Amino acid sequence: MKKCIITIGRQCGNGGHTIGKTVAERLGIPLYDKKLVQIVAERSGLSAETVRREGEYSSASSLFTSVSSRGYSAYSVSQKDGMVLPDQINAYQTELIKELADKGSCVIVGRCADYILQERRDCFHVFIAGELKDRAARVIEEHGISAAAARSHVKDRDRRRSSYYKHITDQVWGMAANYDLCLNSSKLGIDRCVELILAATYMDS
Amino acid sequence: MKKCIITIGRQCGNGGHTIGKTVAERLGIPLYDKKLVQIVAERSGLSAETVRREGEYSSASSLFTSVSSRGYSAYSVSQKDGMVLPDQINAYQTELIKELADKGSCVIVGRCADYILQERRDCFHVFIAGELKDRAARVIEEHGISAAAARSHVKDRDRRRSSYYKHITDQVWGMAANYDLCLNSSKLGIDRCVELILAATYMDS
Repeated sequence: MKKCIITIGRQCGNGGHTIGKTVAERLGIPLYDKKLVQIVAERSGLSAETVRREGEYSSASSLFTSVSSRGYSAYSVSQKDGMVLPDQINAYQTELIKELADKGSCVIVGRCADYILQERRDCFHVFIAGELKDRAARVIEEHGISAAAARSHVKDRDRRRSSYYKHITDQVWGMAANYDLCLNSSKLGIDRCVELILAATYMDS
Repeated sequence: MKKCIITIGRQCGNGGHTIGKTVAERLGIPLYDKKLVQIVAERSGLSAETVRREGEYSSASSLFTSVSSRGYSAYSVSQKDGMVLPDQINAYQTELIKELADKGSCVIVGRCADYILQERRDCFHVFIAGELKDRAARVIEEHGISAAAARSHVKDRDRRRSSYYKHITDQVWGMAANYDLCLNSSKLGIDRCVELILAATYMDS
């Protein structure tokens, strides 16, 4: 099998994780999603929860500190060049994602991996979109919350992912021109999304 | 074959027309690209060149008149409700695109067809992106102009298509979430784009 690093950006609740996991299983290559968070947590000395939260989502506090360039003195970790927390986590994520891409074929979900690896020719960048109602339904099923809470959860996560992506990349999150293949999982279904990714990367042959 | 209306949005110079033409030929269904312009020209009494230019591209004059809501009195055509030219052409295009979709399977290139037909369930919306260098190269080959002129031509067309799309739909042109499938023709090549559209719409089976 030729080397291929597949990055998957995704809106909240559209099955992006399942699609990435299935593609990785079908190809017998590693998946980096929660595992990436764990490694960054180990290397940085931050908790996995902090890395998950601040390494892909903008929050009011992180945005404020980005603007003011004030370091997070509350964290007992070494801060190179006085970087604010989202930038510090991004530095660890960028380093790790480049290492993983050097190492061999894999699937990387989220964390601006499409942008971080944009200059490499052995990568394939995917974005998964979906209808709000279907994404909210998936969140209701997974977390057992109300319909109104699920819609609010999905919209809030998308807004904060979009804002984080803009902060790190200075690009608009979810623009087709930044990816090789974008799929609507509501229209296509999870299984067909997997098949199309394999077909597009020639990994089905 | 089940009924399917395939709409194709595309950046300038990335082979979107060729992809649409080939998909239509493979499926034995009509292609509406220049043909759509011709029909709108016949119905409106405007020249085909005016429909082509003002029915997909914002120009300084059309934008200005959109803002000021001043009618194009220079045109000797009946103007319903005093609509400005881009809106008037859009009204004809919208009417025609809905008619074509009612009639049967077809491929429609450009003209905000994805937006016009967004509520229908028998449609499949595609967007084709591509790298600037490849798009400029295609324009050089087709029109025999200089590299600098080709890059400028491509960027100007994209800017004006984007602006027209925003004016008509109030959406951002090229956002993955507005389509079912987005393809990068630089990375995938024209032939693989065609195959993926057929696979995604189940038209390959």
